[in-house]
Amino acid sequence: MFSPKDVALTRKRIREKVPLIHNITNVVVTQITANMLLALGASPAMVNAREEVEEFVIKANALVINLGTITHFQAESMKLAAKMADNHHIPWVMDPVGIGAISYRSHVALDLLAYHPSVIRGNPSEIIGLNAMVHRHPLMGGRGVDSLARSDEALLAAQSLAQYSQSIVSISGKTDYVTDGKQVVAIHNGDAMMPYVTGLGCSATAITAACLAVQQSKIAAAVHAMVLLGVAGERAAKQVKGPGSLCVAILDELYQMDEATLLHASKIEPIQ
Amino acid sequence: MFSPKDVALTRKRIREKVPLIHNITNVVVTQITANMLLALGASPAMVNAREEVEEFVIKANALVINLGTITHFQAESMKLAAKMADNHHIPWVMDPVGIGAISYRSHVALDLLAYHPSVIRGNPSEIIGLNAMVHRHPLMGGRGVDSLARSDEALLAAQSLAQYSQSIVSISGKTDYVTDGKQVVAIHNGDAMMPYVTGLGCSATAITAACLAVQQSKIAAAVHAMVLLGVAGERAAKQVKGPGSLCVAILDELYQMDEATLLHASKIEPIQ
Amino acid sequence: MFSPKDVALTRKRIREKVPLIHNITNVVVTQITANMLLALGASPAMVNAREEVEEFVIKANALVINLGTITHFQAESMKLAAKMADNHHIPWVMDPVGIGAISYRSHVALDLLAYHPSVIRGNPSEIIGLNAMVHRHPLMGGRGVDSLARSDEALLAAQSLAQYSQSIVSISGKTDYVTDGKQVVAIHNGDAMMPYVTGLGCSATAITAACLAVQQSKIAAAVHAMVLLGVAGERAAKQVKGPGSLCVAILDELYQMDEATLLHASKIEPIQ
Repeated sequence: MFSPKDVALTRKRIREKVPLIHNITNVVVTQITANMLLALGASPAMVNAREEVEEFVIKANALVINLGTITHFQAESMKLAAKMADNHHIPWVMDPVGIGAISYRSHVALDLLAYHPSVIRGNPSEIIGLNAMVHRHPLMGGRGVDSLARSDEALLAAQSLAQYSQSIVSISGKTDYVTDGKQVVAIHNGDAMMPYVTGLGCSATAITAACLAVQQSKIAAAVHAMVLLGVAGERAAKQVKGPGSLCVAILDELYQMDEATLLHASKIEPIQ
Repeated sequence: MFSPKDVALTRKRIREKVPLIHNITNVVVTQITANMLLALGASPAMVNAREEVEEFVIKANALVINLGTITHFQAESMKLAAKMADNHHIPWVMDPVGIGAISYRSHVALDLLAYHPSVIRGNPSEIIGLNAMVHRHPLMGGRGVDSLARSDEALLAAQSLAQYSQSIVSISGKTDYVTDGKQVVAIHNGDAMMPYVTGLGCSATAITAACLAVQQSKIAAAVHAMVLLGVAGERAAKQVKGPGSLCVAILDELYQMDEATLLHASKIEPIQ
Repeated sequence: MFSPKDVALTRKRIREKVPLIHNITNVVVTQITANMLLALGASPAMVNAREEVEEFVIKANALVINLGTITHFQAESMKLAAKMADNHHIPWVMDPVGIGAISYRSHVALDLLAYHPSVIRGNPSEIIGLNAMVHRHPLMGGRGVDSLARSDEALLAAQSLAQYSQSIVSISGKTDYVTDGKQVVAIHNGDAMMPYVTGLGCSATAITAACLAVQQSKIAAAVHAMVLLGVAGERAAKQVKGPGSLCVAILDELYQMDEATLLHASKIEPIQ
C-alpha cells in the first residue's frame, strides 16, 4: 500500500481515469492548482456558486475545499458541497488554510468537519490550530498562512485530530506525515525551495483529491499524493536557480513522471 | 480574409492600436488571460463590479464574458455589460465554460444570447450543450469544463447555434472550426499538449476579442485568433518538455510573433 | 537612506524578519504578488472577508490595498482593514488601479485616503487621476488599467497628492519617481519589456509594503522597493526572449538577489 510501486499505480490510474476534481478553493492558487491537476492527468473544475455546487459535486470524482480566501458566500457553498459529497460518498479533502490564526474560518472549518472529510491536509500550524479548536483548547498556532511550527511538532496534534474526526490527517513540512490516528507514515521527498512557491501546499491538497478518486485506501491516497508532489519538487529543484523556474519545472516533472522515476525516487517510511 | 497575410495584418493592427479589452472572466484564468493579451499587444482590464461595468465597457474596444466561475453577482454584471456592449456596438465574445454540464450558468448563457454576442467560443461539449439549450433539447454534453466530445462532432451543433444566435461560433479542438452558420473554416494549428495548460481556451476567447477590436469581419477575427494561438502553441511545444514550460513559451512566442512566422505557419482551410 | 547599501540592508532585513504582508488585492495578480513576496523572503497572506480583515491586519507587519477588481464587498473590507491599520500604526500601501478611469473605485480610493496610507503607488494615469479627484478637478487621465501618461508628466500631480494626503507617492514608469511632496527621488532601474507582464505594478506595491515592514523611513521604503523590482527586472530581461520567461526570471532574480548585485546595479538619483 505504501510501496513505490503503489504510488506508480495510482499515478497510472489517474492518467487512465482522468478523474473530475471539483475545487472550491482560494483565489491565489486557482491557476496553479488547475495546472497541477492537468499535468497529473486529472480534470479540474472550479465551481463556487451556491446555485451550482450541489449539482456539480455529484458529477465529480472528488472534492477539494480550501479555506484560503474564504468569504461568507464561499462558506455557504462549501457547506452545501461538503454535505452533498458526504451523502453521496464522494471523497473530499479539506485544506484548513490559516486555521488557528483567524477565528471566522476556524469556525467554518469546525462546521465542515461534520461532513466527514476523507483527508485533512494542512501545514503544521494549521493542524495544531484545528486540533486545538476541536478540543476547545486555547489556540496555539498560526500567524498567517505560512507555518511557524515544524511538521514533527504537529504530529501528536495530527493523530489526535485524526482520531476525533475519523479523517486521515496529512501534514506537509520538511518531512511530511500522514496518519489515520494510529498508523503514521513519513514521506521524505521534497525540497527546501518549495515553500518559496505559492500554492504548492494547496496543490498537494488537490493532488490528494485526485489520488482519492482512484485509490480506495484513504491513507494510501494521502501518502501517494505527497510522494508525487515531493518527487516532482526535488527533481525540479535540481534544474533551477529560483522559485519562478521551480514552479514551471514541477509542472513539467509531474506531467512526465513515469513508473521508473517513482520506483527510484519515492521515500516512504511507515514509522508507527 | 482567411489568408496568412490577413492574420499577420490583424496581428500588426493589434500592436498598433493597443485595443482595450474588458474581461469579465473566471478566477482561474485572470492572470494567463491578461498575460496573453499583453503579449499580443492589447491592453487587458478585468472589471467585474456591477457599479463599474456599464461605465467601463463603453470605453473598451471589445468585451469578453466568460462563465467559468460564475456567481450571481457576476451574472448580474455580465448582463449589464453585455446589454451596454450590444447597445453601443462594441463587439463581444461569450465563452460558455461548463454550459451543458451545469444548469444555473446554462440559463445565464441563454439570457446573454439576447445581447447578440459577436462570437461564441467554446469547446465541443459546451457548443453542443448551448445548442441543445437554445433548441430545448435534452442536454447531451459536458461533465466538467474539459470536453468529452471532438470538435468535428460539434460542427453541426455549431452551425445550428450560429444560425439561431446570428453569432459566429468558434470551436476549439484538435482541429478548430469557425462558422457563421453557412461558411465553415477549419484551422489546423495547435499542439496536443495544449489542453494540459489551464486557460488556453479562455485565452483563445480573449484573443478573439482583441482581433474583433481591429477587424471588421467577425468570422475573420474568430479565425485569426485561433491561428495566432495555435501557431504560438505549436512553436512553443517544440521547445519544451511539459505544460509548465509550454505556457511560458506560448507567451514568448505570441510576443515575438511576426509576419514571416505567420506566413509560414498559418494553416487555414475554408471547407464549406 | 537612498544609497545602494541601504537597499541591500532593507533586502537583508526582509529575509531575516520574514514580515507578514496582508494583501487585499485584485483577482488577476494574487498569484504573482504572493510569489514575489515569497521570493523576496516575506510571508504573504490574502485575506478579504469582512469577518476576517480586522482581526488579521493587526497581526500583519504591513497591509496592501489594491483596487484592481474591486466589488462592494471588497470595498467594505478595505475600509475596515485600512481603518484598523491606521489606528494600530501598521504601515499600508494603496494601489489605485484604474482610478481616474472608473468612478466607483475612484470614490472608494478617496474614502480610503482618510485612513492615511503610508504610500500610494500607481502608474502615471492613476496618480494624475487620484490627484484630480482630491482637488475636485475634472478627471483627466486613464482609459483602462494601463497608463496613457508618462511618469515625468505625473510628477507634479504626485507632489500635489503627497502634500494633500501626507502620504509618500510612488509612480512607476520608464523612470520611477518617489516623493513626499517636497523631496523627489528618481529610480532608473527596470526594463521596457516589464509592462508586458501583468501584475508587476501590483507586485511593486506589495514589495513596497514588505520594505515598509522593516524600514522606518517611508520614503526610503518606497524607493528601495522600486529598486529591488527594477534590478530584478533588468537582470531578468537580459536572459529572456519574451514576457512569459521574463516573469519567471524576475522571481528567480528576486530570490537570489544579494548585496553585491544591489551595490552594482541600483540606480537611485535624488533630484530635488
